[in-house]
Amino acid sequence: MKFSMERATLLKAVSQAQSVVERRNTIPILANVLIEAEGSTVQFRATDLDIEVVDKAPAQVERAGAGTVSAVLLHEIIRKLPDGSLVTLTEDGTAGRLTVEAGRSNFSLATLPREDFPVMASSEYSANFTAKAAVLRRLFDKSKFAISTEETRYYLNGVYMHIAEAEDGRVLRCVATDGHRLARIDAEVPQGAEDMPGVIVPRKTVNELRKLLEDDDMDIAVSVSETKVRFATPEITLTSKVIDGTFPDYSRVIPQNNARRLEVDAAEFARAVDRVATVSSERSRAVKLQLDEDRLVLSVNAPDSGAAEEELAVAYGDERLEIGFNAKYLLEIANQVDRENAVFLFNSSGDPTLMREGTDTSAVYVVMPMRV
Amino acid sequence: MKFSMERATLLKAVSQAQSVVERRNTIPILANVLIEAEGSTVQFRATDLDIEVVDKAPAQVERAGAGTVSAVLLHEIIRKLPDGSLVTLTEDGTAGRLTVEAGRSNFSLATLPREDFPVMASSEYSANFTAKAAVLRRLFDKSKFAISTEETRYYLNGVYMHIAEAEDGRVLRCVATDGHRLARIDAEVPQGAEDMPGVIVPRKTVNELRKLLEDDDMDIAVSVSETKVRFATPEITLTSKVIDGTFPDYSRVIPQNNARRLEVDAAEFARAVDRVATVSSERSRAVKLQLDEDRLVLSVNAPDSGAAEEELAVAYGDERLEIGFNAKYLLEIANQVDRENAVFLFNSSGDPTLMREGTDTSAVYVVMPMRV
Repeated sequence: MKFSMERATLLKAVSQAQSVVERRNTIPILANVLIEAEGSTVQFRATDLDIEVVDKAPAQVERAGAGTVSAVLLHEIIRKLPDGSLVTLTEDGTAGRLTVEAGRSNFSLATLPREDFPVMASSEYSANFTAKAAVLRRLFDKSKFAISTEETRYYLNGVYMHIAEAEDGRVLRCVATDGHRLARIDAEVPQGAEDMPGVIVPRKTVNELRKLLEDDDMDIAVSVSETKVRFATPEITLTSKVIDGTFPDYSRVIPQNNARRLEVDAAEFARAVDRVATVSSERSRAVKLQLDEDRLVLSVNAPDSGAAEEELAVAYGDERLEIGFNAKYLLEIANQVDRENAVFLFNSSGDPTLMREGTDTSAVYVVMPMRV
Repeated sequence: MKFSMERATLLKAVSQAQSVVERRNTIPILANVLIEAEGSTVQFRATDLDIEVVDKAPAQVERAGAGTVSAVLLHEIIRKLPDGSLVTLTEDGTAGRLTVEAGRSNFSLATLPREDFPVMASSEYSANFTAKAAVLRRLFDKSKFAISTEETRYYLNGVYMHIAEAEDGRVLRCVATDGHRLARIDAEVPQGAEDMPGVIVPRKTVNELRKLLEDDDMDIAVSVSETKVRFATPEITLTSKVIDGTFPDYSRVIPQNNARRLEVDAAEFARAVDRVATVSSERSRAVKLQLDEDRLVLSVNAPDSGAAEEELAVAYGDERLEIGFNAKYLLEIANQVDRENAVFLFNSSGDPTLMREGTDTSAVYVVMPMRV
């Protein structure tokens, strides 16, 4: 194998691959990227056995072939080469070395046999559709904060992407929850997704996927089966196993009849929560909300360090209510609001609270209260 | 005590104080800042018993007085208040609380008795002089990387600031070394510093001092005694104990007769060292330098991951030489060069090497070789 590429193109291709590689590996080959050169294209492939990423880039291929080399080391070397360099990678298959040359720099890197590199088995996908990057980004960005980190509830360690029945018809929906809060985000059903099986997309896949979604108008090809999900741009293909479990019936958690309505400027609210929470150094900091006629008082009481209180002018017309929340959860949902005021719907101080943006029901959040 | 200040002024004053406070304190009062309001000035004082910082700022003082409160908490609160706020601090001395008010935010913070706050004993300083911030910054910035972190050689855990005899007369000199490399930086002797006792300024003091030296033309008042050193701007006074030990006789370490002269572009050299060192993941990475007629080859050999080699065009006219160094040490000294080419003076592959900028001898570096 021998090929040359401009440094920037090579860096981009290797950087997506190396980010999938786990830093601590017990299986040496998993630290490597498989490089395959053929025609006028080079493919960079990396995997952690659950996720596989393949990145294609155009190159001047002098001799077709393949080889594997440490993904992190290759990435570091290319990153440090001068911008604009032409980089040549060569592997002659005999010496167990891959060479990287650029200008007067010369690197000779240890390789492992390409035959040992685990290539993910191909699958039959039962649904194939196309969605704009901006649509997928919204679905996952607004839900992923609620993914659980508890390994015992492994079926909550991802975002549940599925087709659901909303008030105005069927939607493509992403839901995540950790039992304390929940996010439910809807989008139009893309053509071809109607019969998609529901899948739990693991946290790491959600994070890797994010890098494919920078360009709003990019068409992303999505394929879904019972066991796998694939997202692809023309250059990058990300294939991932999905979590083998049943996502709980979240619909029972979403309150339907919360009637006490608070409307508040989301950014102002978030800043006030952040400020009053400062006085408490505990991990689960409780913030008390006291609601009265168009008036919200946020307060935190931490006996050993002090107390904080802040008043906000809000729209609230119901009877007096006192309710407590984890400050971090309140902040996280308030930060999801990007266009309008945050609308909170309360029932009693012991019941889950619902939050949405203005009258938009395509993104709703539920948060459990805390005793204060 | 009651006074008001604009948020930005308050933030600046508290931020210098809180940075001296150690995050883990066994003595509770040391986590606090002592606030003293009198006339039209408020002083913020913090200490770790070795360093004391006092920051003065103008304020609208309504009622003189003093109080102590958690430095980190106060800093966090002020940082989170909206820009432009007028902040009022009140302590009535009875309730054990200090209140912070701004707009509709209200904080009540736990205090500790001001009598418990340890104020550093004043000393007689045997030398007092003034130096420009830019001069002090150069002396300490260019030497501090070589400070030792070995606690057993506590007398190397700082920068040795003293008056020394250089070739062209007396100089104000800063020296730091960890036994593997050494930095020696000279400046003109300021008026009044001639009889200054030599002092070892601790690492933490060097770092805190750095924040006083941002403005090139600022006059810094320096006071030195056998046991303490003080640096002051009109607002901030930083007083520190010095390390109670004897700095070793460093002059024996600086080679006088190294004759083999290499001249190289410092930035290009540093980037090349950084690149070839990539292939080795060891902590002490050895880089081999092979010198020949106007040609330098840098190489690293790491049996398990690979090898790297890079050639640089340099000015070198002496006989062939092979010498090894710790990559990190080479990088750090190359990064000190800011105007001209780096000039290396070698003797043999087993002797210390000297580095300086061009023909300037007011900043010289020594680095020990490694077997490669």
